[in-house]
Amino acid sequence: MAKKPLPPLLYADTASSADQLYFSRVSVHDPFIAFGVGQKRFTVQNALEFGRVLKARSFDKVLPLEAWVARARKRHPDRKVGPAEIIAELAKAHRLPGFRVADDFPAALFLKLRDLGLHIELADGPLFPEREVKTPREAAALREGNRLSSIGFTVAEDILRQSRIRKRELIFEGKVLTSERVQFAIASALMANGGHSEDTIVAGGNQACDPHERGHGPLRPNEMIIVDIFPRVTKTGYFGDMTRTYLKGRASAAQRKLYATVHEAQRAAIKAVRTGVDGREVHQQVLNVFESAGFQTKHGKQGSVGFFHGTGHGLGLAVHEVPRVSTVPYTLVKGSVVTIEPGLYYPGLGGCRIEDVVQVTDRGAKLLSSHHYDWEIK
Amino acid sequence: MAKKPLPPLLYADTASSADQLYFSRVSVHDPFIAFGVGQKRFTVQNALEFGRVLKARSFDKVLPLEAWVARARKRHPDRKVGPAEIIAELAKAHRLPGFRVADDFPAALFLKLRDLGLHIELADGPLFPEREVKTPREAAALREGNRLSSIGFTVAEDILRQSRIRKRELIFEGKVLTSERVQFAIASALMANGGHSEDTIVAGGNQACDPHERGHGPLRPNEMIIVDIFPRVTKTGYFGDMTRTYLKGRASAAQRKLYATVHEAQRAAIKAVRTGVDGREVHQQVLNVFESAGFQTKHGKQGSVGFFHGTGHGLGLAVHEVPRVSTVPYTLVKGSVVTIEPGLYYPGLGGCRIEDVVQVTDRGAKLLSSHHYDWEIK
Repeated sequence: MAKKPLPPLLYADTASSADQLYFSRVSVHDPFIAFGVGQKRFTVQNALEFGRVLKARSFDKVLPLEAWVARARKRHPDRKVGPAEIIAELAKAHRLPGFRVADDFPAALFLKLRDLGLHIELADGPLFPEREVKTPREAAALREGNRLSSIGFTVAEDILRQSRIRKRELIFEGKVLTSERVQFAIASALMANGGHSEDTIVAGGNQACDPHERGHGPLRPNEMIIVDIFPRVTKTGYFGDMTRTYLKGRASAAQRKLYATVHEAQRAAIKAVRTGVDGREVHQQVLNVFESAGFQTKHGKQGSVGFFHGTGHGLGLAVHEVPRVSTVPYTLVKGSVVTIEPGLYYPGLGGCRIEDVVQVTDRGAKLLSSHHYDWEIK
Repeated sequence: MAKKPLPPLLYADTASSADQLYFSRVSVHDPFIAFGVGQKRFTVQNALEFGRVLKARSFDKVLPLEAWVARARKRHPDRKVGPAEIIAELAKAHRLPGFRVADDFPAALFLKLRDLGLHIELADGPLFPEREVKTPREAAALREGNRLSSIGFTVAEDILRQSRIRKRELIFEGKVLTSERVQFAIASALMANGGHSEDTIVAGGNQACDPHERGHGPLRPNEMIIVDIFPRVTKTGYFGDMTRTYLKGRASAAQRKLYATVHEAQRAAIKAVRTGVDGREVHQQVLNVFESAGFQTKHGKQGSVGFFHGTGHGLGLAVHEVPRVSTVPYTLVKGSVVTIEPGLYYPGLGGCRIEDVVQVTDRGAKLLSSHHYDWEIK
C-alpha cells in the first residue's frame, strides 16, 4: 500500500530559500511559516506582511500570525511560544499528522516539532522534485536571465573595444581600466534591463585561474579575461548563467589553442546531452577533448591547474541546483536545465571558460542562451 | 565546574548566512564546512574554491575537500559519502568530541552527525553572541551603510524636486514618474558608491500602507511617499537601514500631523535608548506618543491600520538580527546597534515611517545615521 506523502512545511525567507520562493511566489524577507493542506497552500504572516501577502494572491489562505500566537499561548501558558508551538497548533487545527521538510530545515525547529509530537519527515533529497523539470514558462524565465547575461557581454565587449593599449595597461575614458569598472558597467546594464547581480566575474590573467575570483584591479592587454555573468531576473527570481572569455590585443598561439580546446570541449559536451544520459558521460566528453589536446590537470598545495570543476549544474530559482554534470552519477531527465561550462586554468598562460545553458530533450540539448564566441578584441 | 564550550561548526554559504560570513570573512557561494579548533578557524574547500580562499588568508587553515572525501570513503566503503562523513573524519583527526551549531543548522546533517556518534549541541540562541556587540570597526561599517542610504535619499529628493505636477501625475524627464524609476536611480547611485540593494522601497499613497510593499507604478502629487533604503556595503557585507517619508506638492493638515507625530515618536524612542533598558520600554515611548496624538491601531480581515510593527531591530551582517525593540522582552546591551523606525499607516491618508540607526551606550543612543528630515518638496 502506497504511503500518502505528508504535506510540505517551510520555515524560511524567500531571498535565501529557493524552495520557499517556489512555493510562495511572493517575496518575504524574514523567515515565515508556509505549508500544504491537500493541494492548497497556506501561510501565516504577521501584521507587517499580512496585507501585502494577501494582495499578492499567491496563497490559498493567509492566516494572521498574532491570532495563532494567542492560541498557542493558551495551550502552553508555561513556556515561551515560538514557531514550533504555532506550527503544532496549525497542524492540530487542520488535522495534519505531520509534515515533510527540506534537508536544510532548521535543526532546532525540527527537534522541537518532534518533541511536540508531530511526525516530521525529512525529504532526503529535494523537497519539491518537480523543481528539476522546467515548464515552458520557467524555460522562458531562464532565457530572460541569459538575455541579461548577453547584454552584459555586449557591455564588456564595447568597453574593451573602446579601450586603448598603453604598454601594460588598458585606458578607457582616460583612466586605467579595471575589473571593477567593467563589473560596474555590467551591473548597471543588468539593472536597467530588470535584473541584478552583485557577483559578476571579470577576472584577467592569473586572477582568472581561480574560477570564482571576482577580479580586481587593472585588466591587462594580451591576457585572457573571464567574464561570468549570472544575473537574477528581479520579477521572476530565475537566473541566467553564461561565461565568455576575452582578450584585448593579440593572442599568442598558446592562448588560441587554449580557447579553441575549451570551445571544442563545450561543443562536445553539449552534443552529449540528451534525456536519460548520465551527467558523468557529458563530463567525460570534456575530459576526452582536454586529454587529446594534451592539457593536464594537477593538484598542488597552493591549488590546482587544468580542469578542476564540474562541467555543469542545474539552473533555476537557485544558481546551483540539480542536476549535476560532473564526476558524480546523475541521470539527466527530460526538461531539466543545466549549464555546460568547461574551463582550463594555467597561471602564466591564463584562464578560459565558456558557458551556455541548455534544456534536456529527447533529441538532444536545446540552447536557452545565445551569444557569439568572438573573443579577440583588437 | 564550568563546561568547556564545544567549538563552532558551520555548513552554509556566506551570501545567505551572516554567521558564516562573520566566521569566514571571505565570500563563498555554495555551502561549505567551517569549524573552530581551539581559537583557530579551519575550513574545507573544493578545488574550485581552494586557491582563492587560501589567498584570502582569513582562515588559519584551508583543507582540500577531495583529500578528506577520500579519507571518509576509506572508512565508509559501503555508503555515499557526504558532508556528515567528512565532518566526522575531521573531528576524529583534530580530536574534537563534537561541535556547537546554530539553531538554523541543516536538520538532515544534524541528525546524520549524531548518528555518526558526534556530540552536536544546538546554540539555543545566537551561535556567536559576540555578533550583538559591534566593535568600532563594525560601527564604522554600519555608518558607511547608512551613508549609502543617505545618498539614496538625496537622489530621490532631486528627482521629486525636478518633477513637475501635471494633474494627478508627476512628470520627470518628460515621462510619468514611477516608483520603479526612483528605485532604479537609487540602486544606480548605491552601486556607484560601493553598495547594493535590490529591495529599496519607494511606495506612495495607499501602497505605502503595506510597510514592506516595494511600490510600483506612478507616484502621485500630494501623497506621502515612503522611501526605505537598506543597502549592503559590498566590501564588508554590513548593512545600512534608513527610512524617510516625502511628499511632492502640498501636504494637508492631517498629513502634517501624521508626519509630526511619527517624528516625535521617533525622537522619544531614541531618547529612551540606553545600556540596560528593555526594548519594550523604548517601544512603549512610541505607543505613548501615538496614543496621546489620537492615532489608533486596528486589526481587520484585510490587514491592519495604525502602528503594527516593531519599533526597531538589530542591524549588522544581516538586515534583521538581535536585539529587538518591540513588545517582546529584550535588554539592550552596550555596543549593540538598533534601528528606531516608528510608522503610521492609514489608507486614504497615507503611510509615514522615519528610521535611523543608533548604537547603545551608557549615556544614551549614539546616532550611526544622518540625514535631514525635510519632507515637503514643492
